[in-house]
Amino acid sequence: MSFEPPFSNKAEQDETGELRPKFNADGLIAAIAQDADTHEILMLAWMNETALRATLETRRGTYWSRSRQALWVKGESSGHVQDVVEVLIDCDQDAVLLKVRQTGGACHTGRKACFYRTIDPETLRLSKS
Amino acid sequence: MSFEPPFSNKAEQDETGELRPKFNADGLIAAIAQDADTHEILMLAWMNETALRATLETRRGTYWSRSRQALWVKGESSGHVQDVVEVLIDCDQDAVLLKVRQTGGACHTGRKACFYRTIDPETLRLSKS
Repeated sequence: MSFEPPFSNKAEQDETGELRPKFNADGLIAAIAQDADTHEILMLAWMNETALRATLETRRGTYWSRSRQALWVKGESSGHVQDVVEVLIDCDQDAVLLKVRQTGGACHTGRKACFYRTIDPETLRLSKS
Repeated sequence: MSFEPPFSNKAEQDETGELRPKFNADGLIAAIAQDADTHEILMLAWMNETALRATLETRRGTYWSRSRQALWVKGESSGHVQDVVEVLIDCDQDAVLLKVRQTGGACHTGRKACFYRTIDPETLRLSKS
């Protein structure tokens, strides 16, 4: 069963107690994963409806891989799973925030988090942290 | 002058010291704003190239409003500006993370942050925090 569509009235969408996610033209919603303990941002990925439902039901971070065009249970092959502590949704319901406990690195490069480079505002060069 | 295009080699894109943002088909990149002090996630918005450059140059959070299809200096009308402390970019350079000091609420509803509702995994109802 699909979710109900978003309310057309913006204030209603902002304040409703109903889950009415606003998927984009590709049927996806942005998902931020944040370490529940350190509050570090681990990654930004995407979910379709199936991935969002699976994340809520299984408490394992589950996404839609845009490159592979397939459901992606994070850590299924690497073991770097995400135990989901809490799922929040934003005002217009087009982004979710997962508070997770991450086993191993969240990033495919092996790092804890994907945001390991800072942009120097003067030179526009990246430096690794 | 435009940024150089992303490297086609994924490992090169992951490790380069060059800023080579990967904009989507609409010319946009996702931008997460996080409170630099409390580490709370304030909002998820979008930037085009102009917004990203403006954010880096002015140190004020600047986005692309998809609803208004216009450059959006956050807080320009409300006064709820974001002073940008640091800008990070993720592995494949299709998302940025702004660490900011937020004046007033980041959310258009007046709240500090946009992620003010938790999804109950059993009932799929939202509860406000």
